Amino acid sequence: MTQPLRIALAGLGTVGGGVVKLLEANRALIERRAGRPIAITAISARDRTRDRGVDLSGFAWVDDAATLATRDDVDVVVELIGGADGPALTLARATLAAGKAFVTANKAMIAHHGVELAEAAEKADAALKYEAAVAGGIPVIKGLREGAAANEIGHVYGILNGTCNYILTKMEQEGLDFADVLAEAQALGYAEADPSFDIDGVDAAHKLSILASLAFGTTLDFDSVAISGIRHVIAADIAEAQALGFRVRLVGLAEAGGGGLFQRVHACLVPISHPLAHVVGSLNAVVAEGNFVGRLFFEGRGAGEGPTASAVVADLIDIARGEYGPAFAMPVASLAHLPPAIPGERNGRAYLRFTVADRPGVLAEITAAMRDAGVSIESLIQRGAAADGGVLLVMVTHDCPESAVADALDRLKGSASILSQPMLMHILDI
Amino acid sequence: MTQPLRIALAGLGTVGGGVVKLLEANRALIERRAGRPIAITAISARDRTRDRGVDLSGFAWVDDAATLATRDDVDVVVELIGGADGPALTLARATLAAGKAFVTANKAMIAHHGVELAEAAEKADAALKYEAAVAGGIPVIKGLREGAAANEIGHVYGILNGTCNYILTKMEQEGLDFADVLAEAQALGYAEADPSFDIDGVDAAHKLSILASLAFGTTLDFDSVAISGIRHVIAADIAEAQALGFRVRLVGLAEAGGGGLFQRVHACLVPISHPLAHVVGSLNAVVAEGNFVGRLFFEGRGAGEGPTASAVVADLIDIARGEYGPAFAMPVASLAHLPPAIPGERNGRAYLRFTVADRPGVLAEITAAMRDAGVSIESLIQRGAAADGGVLLVMVTHDCPESAVADALDRLKGSASILSQPMLMHILDI
Repeated sequence: MTQPLRIALAGLGTVGGGVVKLLEANRALIERRAGRPIAITAISARDRTRDRGVDLSGFAWVDDAATLATRDDVDVVVELIGGADGPALTLARATLAAGKAFVTANKAMIAHHGVELAEAAEKADAALKYEAAVAGGIPVIKGLREGAAANEIGHVYGILNGTCNYILTKMEQEGLDFADVLAEAQALGYAEADPSFDIDGVDAAHKLSILASLAFGTTLDFDSVAISGIRHVIAADIAEAQALGFRVRLVGLAEAGGGGLFQRVHACLVPISHPLAHVVGSLNAVVAEGNFVGRLFFEGRGAGEGPTASAVVADLIDIARGEYGPAFAMPVASLAHLPPAIPGERNGRAYLRFTVADRPGVLAEITAAMRDAGVSIESLIQRGAAADGGVLLVMVTHDCPESAVADALDRLKGSASILSQPMLMHILDI
Repeated sequence: MTQPLRIALAGLGTVGGGVVKLLEANRALIERRAGRPIAITAISARDRTRDRGVDLSGFAWVDDAATLATRDDVDVVVELIGGADGPALTLARATLAAGKAFVTANKAMIAHHGVELAEAAEKADAALKYEAAVAGGIPVIKGLREGAAANEIGHVYGILNGTCNYILTKMEQEGLDFADVLAEAQALGYAEADPSFDIDGVDAAHKLSILASLAFGTTLDFDSVAISGIRHVIAADIAEAQALGFRVRLVGLAEAGGGGLFQRVHACLVPISHPLAHVVGSLNAVVAEGNFVGRLFFEGRGAGEGPTASAVVADLIDIARGEYGPAFAMPVASLAHLPPAIPGERNGRAYLRFTVADRPGVLAEITAAMRDAGVSIESLIQRGAAADGGVLLVMVTHDCPESAVADALDRLKGSASILSQPMLMHILDI
């Protein structure tokens, strides 16, 4: 075990550069912990000339990343190219087919092709590891795959997108509107020029589907994640939620039970007493609730050069130590196929915000629709003028089937009293 | 790998019973995750007749736990007897000498004899695992040994004793005094009849010394942990701390740097913005700060039947999978020997509480001592009558060497103005 573990690195963006820096900065410590040196031998990236602030001269440079898979001087390929398909997937398949270990930070690829790749890894008896794909530096893949492995897990959920959490907590702290904070975040480089992948919940959904598979021992099912984002959260939602004892967070939530798999990414109201309410800025956090361990809570940095590189190199150390096994905690053949849970069957409280016309009878109309749908109201606040001249009406329902709330909103569709699309957020009562 | 992993269980108290229940309740899931069944074959406990609420009839019962080590039908011995020495240590040595895997929840034994046992495990090429020894169900041993393995860790610290945290947060929430809450906790079974092991910080110190070894790659050094507990925290400390923006927590803190190893268990003031300030009741939490990953925060249940059993069985699953290696993350020969840090060299802010005579000139005397010791004062509160007729004087210093604060207190020793032993708590400024 004193032979170096030889690494090829495909992709030299922020994370790739971070891996090079980390392996250099912590070289001696890593060798002690891994039991042998971890050494980069070959690299590949699109632009050979860009200055990445790290010395790459000691590594073989290849233009076609796919050739890394079959080099004799490579034991592990680290893929940091990104994208669910394309060169990343080609490289993953080629690496595992060649019987080499494969490490990736690519949540989209794992969410879409994780089962296929895990099967290929099993066939080749090779490692497939992806700690960096979910929640950056926080060891949640390990936490679920190993730390909580003795438990039947009922729920796994968390704050899985730092950009959204940055925006929501900035709105919360400064009373700003979504669009203003987004523009500021883009100017500072915290949000992408095209931010839809983050703020519409797709990135969080990729991560959630991976967590769900590990937590419940089920096959990955990204396609059945119900996804919405934070575009429709307004400053008033955050202020009213706060007045009612909640904070607004984009939560990815997965539950297994009743023979179905429930997966949703949604802006939620989180009670102030829940640890997720105290996760601020760009931090990520994951909660798993196990039948023996109770609630486990993990928090840390979910993105960025250092944290993501930390997770990639943790995977490499596991491989160097020979401490790894099936990618999804069990052989693919043992994973259960759970159908998606039937929408609406879930129970819970909900937050609803309406902008309504300022005239008598409107409240009666809305509360009648609630009554007819079987939804009872826990609290209700009506405020002066909303931005568009109407009145802001905010309510929290008692616990009821989600389908009943949807039914109430259906009944109100087309009502002349309601001036804009109502806002529905579920309440995290776990 | 489809042969069952055969377990012997020594000790059938709360945790032992929990392990039996867990292996039964989650049997099918564990077999899928571990890749093979995990089956108890033999057990040993002091009292054969006690009803433990679990069916033990299928297991061989032995009276002398040490004989478990050499049974042909046992692959792993799980030690849940407790105690740093005595039968637990005898069993550990015998098991590893017989080349079998050893799993324990025994923090005292690992803190005192961990290096010896790790050497024995290496020699025998056998697993030595102890996830349950620190922070119960929270996978912090794994988090440090593997999850954060790529990082140089500067600080590792946390809330490591649930009894103390229960008492402190109960004092905080209800304004009660230490003695009253302790009595209540004892009545409810949350605190031992002899609570000194918990409330004087020894239990937390055992755990801290283990975390420090893993975090810094150093040999265990329990003897150099500076230990104090929570007996001297009064309701007024908690109220004044709160007014100043802090909460009082018993924190175990270890730092490596400047060529020395700093380890201390101490009641601290934790800023309200720090995640440890939000850890309430009997929960535990651990923070590790790595040079690439930044701050990692783990929270969960630190004791009790279910959480501790969860950690024990996680270790068993790792062994069943063949995913384990050196007990302290690297071979014992690679662990560094760091001398204890020189006391007083550390810098920080401090909280000081005096009960002083209610007469002119007292404040001048105390502030002069501070000045002469080179300690400057950030804030100072003087309150009406304290319990013993004096005046309560509370201050927070600016950042300064801890030795300067000690010097100031030395200068005030024997002063007739000071009516009782001053209280010093350090401020957690990490």
